[in-house]
Amino acid sequence: MGQKMVSKNDIVNRIRDITGSAGVLFEDGDLEPYTHDEFATDEYHVTPLAVIKPVTEREVAGIINLCSELGVPVTARGAGTGLSAGCVPCEGGIILSLEKMNKVLEIDEENLSVTVQAGVTLSQLYGAIREAGLFFPPHPGDEGAMIGGLVAANAGGARAVKYGTIKQFIRGLHVVMADGAILNLGGNIMKSSSGYHLLDLMVGSEGTLGIITQATLSLQRPPGSMETLVIPFATIDKAVEAVNVLFKAGIIPFAVEFIEHSVISCVEKLLNKSWPAKKGAASLLVILDGPGEEEVLAQAEGVAEELAACDPLEILLAEQKERQADILELRSMIYEALRPGTGELFDICIPRSRISSHIRFLRTLEDRYGISLPTYGHAGDGNIHTHSMNVTFEEGVVGDPVPGWREKHEHLRKELYADAMKRGGVISGEHGIGLVKREYLPENIGENTVAVMRAIKKALDPRGILNPGKIFS
Amino acid sequence: MGQKMVSKNDIVNRIRDITGSAGVLFEDGDLEPYTHDEFATDEYHVTPLAVIKPVTEREVAGIINLCSELGVPVTARGAGTGLSAGCVPCEGGIILSLEKMNKVLEIDEENLSVTVQAGVTLSQLYGAIREAGLFFPPHPGDEGAMIGGLVAANAGGARAVKYGTIKQFIRGLHVVMADGAILNLGGNIMKSSSGYHLLDLMVGSEGTLGIITQATLSLQRPPGSMETLVIPFATIDKAVEAVNVLFKAGIIPFAVEFIEHSVISCVEKLLNKSWPAKKGAASLLVILDGPGEEEVLAQAEGVAEELAACDPLEILLAEQKERQADILELRSMIYEALRPGTGELFDICIPRSRISSHIRFLRTLEDRYGISLPTYGHAGDGNIHTHSMNVTFEEGVVGDPVPGWREKHEHLRKELYADAMKRGGVISGEHGIGLVKREYLPENIGENTVAVMRAIKKALDPRGILNPGKIFS
Repeated sequence: MGQKMVSKNDIVNRIRDITGSAGVLFEDGDLEPYTHDEFATDEYHVTPLAVIKPVTEREVAGIINLCSELGVPVTARGAGTGLSAGCVPCEGGIILSLEKMNKVLEIDEENLSVTVQAGVTLSQLYGAIREAGLFFPPHPGDEGAMIGGLVAANAGGARAVKYGTIKQFIRGLHVVMADGAILNLGGNIMKSSSGYHLLDLMVGSEGTLGIITQATLSLQRPPGSMETLVIPFATIDKAVEAVNVLFKAGIIPFAVEFIEHSVISCVEKLLNKSWPAKKGAASLLVILDGPGEEEVLAQAEGVAEELAACDPLEILLAEQKERQADILELRSMIYEALRPGTGELFDICIPRSRISSHIRFLRTLEDRYGISLPTYGHAGDGNIHTHSMNVTFEEGVVGDPVPGWREKHEHLRKELYADAMKRGGVISGEHGIGLVKREYLPENIGENTVAVMRAIKKALDPRGILNPGKIFS
Repeated sequence: MGQKMVSKNDIVNRIRDITGSAGVLFEDGDLEPYTHDEFATDEYHVTPLAVIKPVTEREVAGIINLCSELGVPVTARGAGTGLSAGCVPCEGGIILSLEKMNKVLEIDEENLSVTVQAGVTLSQLYGAIREAGLFFPPHPGDEGAMIGGLVAANAGGARAVKYGTIKQFIRGLHVVMADGAILNLGGNIMKSSSGYHLLDLMVGSEGTLGIITQATLSLQRPPGSMETLVIPFATIDKAVEAVNVLFKAGIIPFAVEFIEHSVISCVEKLLNKSWPAKKGAASLLVILDGPGEEEVLAQAEGVAEELAACDPLEILLAEQKERQADILELRSMIYEALRPGTGELFDICIPRSRISSHIRFLRTLEDRYGISLPTYGHAGDGNIHTHSMNVTFEEGVVGDPVPGWREKHEHLRKELYADAMKRGGVISGEHGIGLVKREYLPENIGENTVAVMRAIKKALDPRGILNPGKIFS
């Protein structure tokens, strides 16, 4: 890399030639928000040389060309809501923030699609299409997240089980490549067998192969009716096993989440709202959708019938919309509630039938390491979120620091990942690899698979300027 | 390429060291079936040096290593049911046929998946999972097609509109790379953000990036009930416009096909079966699915209500299962019926709302060139099949050769593709590019996009031994 040859001022001046002054930050105080993502601890903080906020694809291409010329690494960033340090700057590198490319460009009601710039947030997208009576099924947790980042991480969320992750909803992407070329991948078409699926290669590539500037997304009509069930069980094992029974019976819920009650009680305190189930150790949260209330209530009856053999303690239907909203808010705020004591949040994905045995293994880890591992997740698709708490955590109360947490946690993480791999899983279901998990990727997917990824990276970004060091080193 | 340095006998002997004698063909008479795919005309026929039929992944890797050493191109082949000359041998190359790797390895009823070798046929797959009460939604036309080839072409079919193309159903792949490495991509997991989506890159790569030897596929419970509607309209325009009305109303059929009645009458003669609609110029074939008969009949009523404004001539519900089967057979045999007079079969995919204007354009082409263009296709996802007939075709009767067809057709093809591109489409929705369409790919998706594909090909197959010349030259 040649960046040592070029002063920060030189770079900033050259960038101003491209974007004008308005879109460049380089004072230390302004840079702080761009030094990290939402990963809980502060070990992945790097201060960028500068933050650039282009407003057009041509400006993005100009910046990439400049960085390529100067050998300066460039890290694309949306809202910074990621959890794997994927958008943390590289040493000596700049941040290319897409936040000003925030326009909803077109809603196509005929073809049920929307075209947005990369800096449009999820909540902005939901708002724009709601007015047109349209619906975007994916719902990764944070509605402040921007589309470019969601695509770059292949974000999932609770609704992925029925409708798929964000990858299934992308019809087209604009991507600026390392040589400044602007690719228009896909389009507003629903299928294609016209050459390699570069679009899918860009999804989940975490800014290492190209900068996503625009996306065309598939939409649907909103479900005519939705119902929310909360079903408590005596043990988490029973809750998780019940999910397999539903799928085997052909019931595919809109979302199906498992949550331990100790986790729920922590978020109840934060929000001052109450979870409907009082009995038992864990609940399933099941959301059903369909064209009309009658169909969905029939589905709910089907759920109750199938689960009768699984010892549910009760089956609670949230009658009013407000109650449904409370329940969803409690689920969606779990991360916030646990965050103050979270050392690391895991995101493994394993075959659904193996969730319960993995959770039993987590209990042995808790005992052996003296570290609390509150766990919940997307039971339908095998994506499990476990918090390694660096404080005590009992009955939902975040307590005192755990002495020697970091060292113990390093061993615990190794064991947790080894267990996920043994069960045929991956270390990230939806958060991405970034810096946080890259050390474990070769063991997980194989050295020869990572070698192929490296070869593609090298072919498309020979100077290594696009977010180098993320996913693999 | 160094193949001129090595005699055919040397190659055959070296291959026998790997696979034994049983799996090698090299007599001209035995090679003929492997010289072409199902593309209608004989312009894409090449005789391979030899045909090898390995039975294990290790043998596949051994053959690839040998071909790499000798510089001999190798073309993977399933059942040869493709329509784009994707599996036609390269000059001086060998065919690696997966036909003997034909085992259904595991049906996982807990996680609703099946793992098969690449040479398993669709009908074999359907049979194996039916016994377990499971269902694989994709249905590309020919049930003799093998899974490896379906994945390599990202096959679609009539059912892709609701459940997606085969890509959406692939959880894991085993792929032998150009350096002999055997990659195990994905697994039996439902989502992953763990590095680049190499699995999706392999889907649709037509044997140019690696040899697919095994796949793990997502399954579902079969729909509890299905109903088949046939809805004739006075004009094809009205039929196609009606489809947009359905989707805008939030009705997503299991399949929705448009078919001109001239096409139907041709296949009626072949099968000696009759299409239920007699009036009008074109029909929609709408298949609905759902958990029970009541729900599906309610959906059918919804279809009838929405279509009331679209001037359907009648709405016919196939009452008995046998009648449903007849209708589906008539649809699925269209290709066979038209084939004797087919010079080329097109496979463009455009935004759904633009199908009717494209079809109006086809009518002007017919008039100007004097070439019949019977047309039908997947109205839900914009994938249109048009046959360029090298014989006269009136009232469903295949007649005499069209003088000067080939030359006229070359011009017609250019215009047809230009119209598809103008409407934001791609030249292949589900058949692949192969040799047949590669000349048009750069204009369609952009030279810079093809350049990225070439860079990936070069990085993963530096000696260019894997099916070189397919997709791009």
